[in-house]
Amino acid sequence: MARADRFLRACRRQPTDATPIWLMRQAGRYLPEYQRLKQQYSILELVKNPDLAVEITLQPVHAFEVDAAIIFADILPLLEGMGLRLRFVEGNGPVIDNPLRESADIDALAIPAADEAFDFTMRAIRSVRQSLAGKVPLIGFSGAPFTLACYAVEGRSSKDFASVKRLLYNQPRMWHRLLEKLAAAVANYARCQIAAGAQAIQLFDSWAGVLSPHDYHEYVLPHVRRVIGEIKEMDVTIPVIYFGTGTAGYLPLFKQAGCDVLGVDWRISLSDAWAQVGDDLALQGNLDPAVLQAPLAEVRRQAACILDDVKGRNGHIFNLGHGVTKETPVEAVDELVNFVHEYTRNGTMGA
Amino acid sequence: MARADRFLRACRRQPTDATPIWLMRQAGRYLPEYQRLKQQYSILELVKNPDLAVEITLQPVHAFEVDAAIIFADILPLLEGMGLRLRFVEGNGPVIDNPLRESADIDALAIPAADEAFDFTMRAIRSVRQSLAGKVPLIGFSGAPFTLACYAVEGRSSKDFASVKRLLYNQPRMWHRLLEKLAAAVANYARCQIAAGAQAIQLFDSWAGVLSPHDYHEYVLPHVRRVIGEIKEMDVTIPVIYFGTGTAGYLPLFKQAGCDVLGVDWRISLSDAWAQVGDDLALQGNLDPAVLQAPLAEVRRQAACILDDVKGRNGHIFNLGHGVTKETPVEAVDELVNFVHEYTRNGTMGA
Repeated sequence: MARADRFLRACRRQPTDATPIWLMRQAGRYLPEYQRLKQQYSILELVKNPDLAVEITLQPVHAFEVDAAIIFADILPLLEGMGLRLRFVEGNGPVIDNPLRESADIDALAIPAADEAFDFTMRAIRSVRQSLAGKVPLIGFSGAPFTLACYAVEGRSSKDFASVKRLLYNQPRMWHRLLEKLAAAVANYARCQIAAGAQAIQLFDSWAGVLSPHDYHEYVLPHVRRVIGEIKEMDVTIPVIYFGTGTAGYLPLFKQAGCDVLGVDWRISLSDAWAQVGDDLALQGNLDPAVLQAPLAEVRRQAACILDDVKGRNGHIFNLGHGVTKETPVEAVDELVNFVHEYTRNGTMGA
Repeated sequence: MARADRFLRACRRQPTDATPIWLMRQAGRYLPEYQRLKQQYSILELVKNPDLAVEITLQPVHAFEVDAAIIFADILPLLEGMGLRLRFVEGNGPVIDNPLRESADIDALAIPAADEAFDFTMRAIRSVRQSLAGKVPLIGFSGAPFTLACYAVEGRSSKDFASVKRLLYNQPRMWHRLLEKLAAAVANYARCQIAAGAQAIQLFDSWAGVLSPHDYHEYVLPHVRRVIGEIKEMDVTIPVIYFGTGTAGYLPLFKQAGCDVLGVDWRISLSDAWAQVGDDLALQGNLDPAVLQAPLAEVRRQAACILDDVKGRNGHIFNLGHGVTKETPVEAVDELVNFVHEYTRNGTMGA
């Protein structure tokens, strides 16, 4: 039952028969079976329909030998549940029509009862667990407080996050009040996912890397610690993966968040990352998603570089450094997944 | 004559009476006197008019106690000189109408005789040197080969540089041929600036941080080494500053480029950066430009954090981690420049 166990064992830095692999956005736009659904439904319709969310979650588990499923959902409906008006503009990403501007906006934010407000996701989680029947574990996820705050304040993706930074520098108390509310909402949402059957939680702090270590420490870290603390209080055995991009300069601060697994992007070698954070942490990553558009020989060569770099260590979960892009050929994903297993299966891992 | 000497002494890691400071884009849109010219002229008109370029270069030197001038120019006219058609679209940044698509496009690129093709900049350099009369040194600059290639291939700024990465993974020989041509053009351009009177050269590799260390090493580093090698062959005493953003995960590779000073962004502490690269390199940076929109007390507090972190070391040139933004209040720049000098002037630096 190697495929069933690999991912969770690696999260706990236990030996595995081969390096586990799953891919961020493995259920997504590069898959023709997802594209077909996307022609009929908007992203929010897909997320809010448990039957379709289950189907999409399972697509990559059936198509590839990936070692984990991740529930099909999105980080932004949580903000919708808190009172923000969310739209997805085709080709332009998410837009929030009433971004946070003043103190009263923050007071007005609700902390939703996640089991009711996101019943669609909880039902999908229960159903996916049943369908998987132990084949591979299921990962739940949420945006982390800072990254959610970026969307809530900027109203859309941003190049330099100027509005967020102006807020935290100029109104630090208001900032911390916002992050406290987001942390409470995220913790509750993650705990409900665990109650519904999620076997690991990934927190996406995709934009944390836009901050200096000083500002991350002062304005963000305490709130992530609180989220992870509340998850661990509920069930200390659930691995928490904490993912960010552009964080190579302060990984030890990311570790202080209290996660079991750190997700890192491709801009640092995993051995250098481990040298920064120490051996008592698992690492997830970190192939540049763009490599999946290279010839298959280059995909294998680059994957081998990463695997050689960490050879002999426990606690490596192979992944991309960010989500699969929509231009990615399906064959490249298949090739990568199989290569990672074959290359590491020859008895040396964890020995 | 402290102001005249500080910057070049710090580039050589010699003791100084106070930490030198200049700011990337110190001659730029946040200054009302620049805005006035910008209402009458396009960026390219300003760059190509030596009298106006001189005036703009000198504006921040007169307005603030900065320790260096940097010639007012842009990294993209070099691509124009190589045969690409460049436009600046108001609010949208630079656009290249005929981005590189195939091998023949690269064959067609010219390596311009920079003294003639960029006579306007060479004249501006000579004139600024005369006007400055030794008050502060003058920095010349160029885009580095990779960052220029990004613009040449993508045709505009990009979020993920997918076209550039597809090219280097799928057609590595064509990629290296492109970078060789760019390196030759950059080296020639930088040498002409030195001949005209530039006393240091900064190479902007602003986008290098989008690559993995593996890809940076394989596809970029040899070409930067060549540029810096050719500059040093001409005049080994001219300090070369090599600047990138998002490079915290592989600063030692950046050092291998052969620079005297490494410019780093705000996503790593300077002491951690020095721990990575060793003491035989000067560092330039690294306040988040967004901090200049904070209250002045926060500007001072954050600047003091950086200065405390590197206290007692020679070879620190204070700067932002990227260019001054157009929303920056003039008072914040003035406050920062004076604070850095006052805070470090009390006899401890280099002692």
